[in-house]
Amino acid sequence: MKKYLITGYSGFVSGHFLHALESLGKPVEVLGIDIADPGINYIFIHVKATFQKLNLLDKEAVSRVLAEFAPDYILHLASYSSVAYSWKSPAEAFVNNTNIFLNLADQIRILNMQCRLLSVGSSEEYGNITEADVPVTEDLFTKPRSPYAVARVSQEMLSEIYAKNYGIDIVLTRSFNHIGPGQRDIFVISSFAKKLVDIKQGILPENEITVGNISLIRDFVDVRDVVRAYLLLFEKGKTGEIYNICSGMGHSLEAILKKLMAILNVSPKIKVDRDFIRPDDNKIMIGSYKKIREQTGWSPDYSLNQSLEDIISYWSGQSRSVI
Amino acid sequence: MKKYLITGYSGFVSGHFLHALESLGKPVEVLGIDIADPGINYIFIHVKATFQKLNLLDKEAVSRVLAEFAPDYILHLASYSSVAYSWKSPAEAFVNNTNIFLNLADQIRILNMQCRLLSVGSSEEYGNITEADVPVTEDLFTKPRSPYAVARVSQEMLSEIYAKNYGIDIVLTRSFNHIGPGQRDIFVISSFAKKLVDIKQGILPENEITVGNISLIRDFVDVRDVVRAYLLLFEKGKTGEIYNICSGMGHSLEAILKKLMAILNVSPKIKVDRDFIRPDDNKIMIGSYKKIREQTGWSPDYSLNQSLEDIISYWSGQSRSVI
Repeated sequence: MKKYLITGYSGFVSGHFLHALESLGKPVEVLGIDIADPGINYIFIHVKATFQKLNLLDKEAVSRVLAEFAPDYILHLASYSSVAYSWKSPAEAFVNNTNIFLNLADQIRILNMQCRLLSVGSSEEYGNITEADVPVTEDLFTKPRSPYAVARVSQEMLSEIYAKNYGIDIVLTRSFNHIGPGQRDIFVISSFAKKLVDIKQGILPENEITVGNISLIRDFVDVRDVVRAYLLLFEKGKTGEIYNICSGMGHSLEAILKKLMAILNVSPKIKVDRDFIRPDDNKIMIGSYKKIREQTGWSPDYSLNQSLEDIISYWSGQSRSVI
Repeated sequence: MKKYLITGYSGFVSGHFLHALESLGKPVEVLGIDIADPGINYIFIHVKATFQKLNLLDKEAVSRVLAEFAPDYILHLASYSSVAYSWKSPAEAFVNNTNIFLNLADQIRILNMQCRLLSVGSSEEYGNITEADVPVTEDLFTKPRSPYAVARVSQEMLSEIYAKNYGIDIVLTRSFNHIGPGQRDIFVISSFAKKLVDIKQGILPENEITVGNISLIRDFVDVRDVVRAYLLLFEKGKTGEIYNICSGMGHSLEAILKKLMAILNVSPKIKVDRDFIRPDDNKIMIGSYKKIREQTGWSPDYSLNQSLEDIISYWSGQSRSVI
């Protein structure tokens, strides 16, 4: 029976990954670790999942859990993945991305473990690209422009050293902006959807939504497509290689906001608050998924409309508490 | 009276920087911090230097020392700067380069301090370049190939964020291979010189020197030229800019070994030990110092022969205990 270790177990992506694993219909064992309690007991037929509270900055604890559980696959999701947050606490964001990854990779090296580690990176690593660069491919030089992006590039450089020079079986991703049901509203699309649902349901008294720079263009990929890509990369990804995981399409935040408003049939006033606009935000980001498609057969299944409808259903209440 | 905070105070470069400061003939105050005791009491006329033992990973201690001393200039020399060491302990090398810098920069941000920080980087950041790339200029993309180099690139990316986005006055260097009297023999030229002096003086019985890959070509710059560049960058460097500090000339390790043998008039057998050859070593590295020359007037003063003679004098004993 294959064993998966999942870090960042209490997060949004982990829940979807577990559902994807379950849907494969094969018995697997999962050990989830996180600094915070998941607050949910998953009930599965095929997936036997347990949780252990653990701080990945604690090297001894990481070493112990690796040695005891002896995973075949490690899905390293733990991350402070908010760009906005990283501007507020750059040092904390760095340590809780790069250093937690480093501890994990280094303990695998020290223990000489045979397992595959998925090192999750971000489209933010590309930095400010031009229209001529889109859709971006993995061979574009990274030019990180936020503390979060710097932390991810550092993780990626370390991943390459550990894969190439220490022979650790690491596969790397640059995952683009995730959307989907269950995502916290510190992320932009989830935040838009939640506010609009609140307006629709009369929870917010004013008929107004405050936003930042909605001219930004992003490539949004459904989390359920993302986790399917991760499963495929565990099976078919190549050691030391980097894979974009993206939809291949760009949409402005404004266009998505208007789609959400149309689905909900609300039309609040859109108010731009300059305090929400972050220094040096990348204007446009659209990725190419040619490489992962060629090597694993992956391509996204979810349409943007389907994702947005599911996000609205999530915030609309009947499914707000489950993923 | 200007105040300098020097991290890595007990190291080789710090001692030379203090002598350079002293030679300016103006009263200055220096607080040196290091995890290890310097083991030396400098006696100067113009420089008033004190030492405080401190671990730069201790954020509270860093904050306290910054607030209390209120430096005008910070020379951040603390580093685990051996590439060889970084292969043996990659995680420790990363933390003791990148994270110590991060703590320093972040506390300056939090305290909103007005001071200039010199962020010392390395030619190792360039990675495996080709002959067509030499002499390398600062606009070449970095391709780090060792844990040490990754740590330095991470530090550099963080420096740029802190300078550009948080307005911290950081000037960056990519300092090439240092040589000079007082350098520890974990570094290659110092190691060659010490062994040859030992052979000359009959301390080593065998007439043989064991080396690694001596075909590597490096740009060696005298530490006394390096510290003069640091002084000039404090005065004339531009915030957020990166400066190569190098000799502009490349020499193979073999050529330098033979120069040292000629100076000492010894001719031991040269034995190559493959265990000394590191994975993925950069074959050639020669820098251009055009940018720093244009912006500060700096160019190297010490000839390679002068440096090698002084290194031999250092190991020959009469000056082995002082810098």
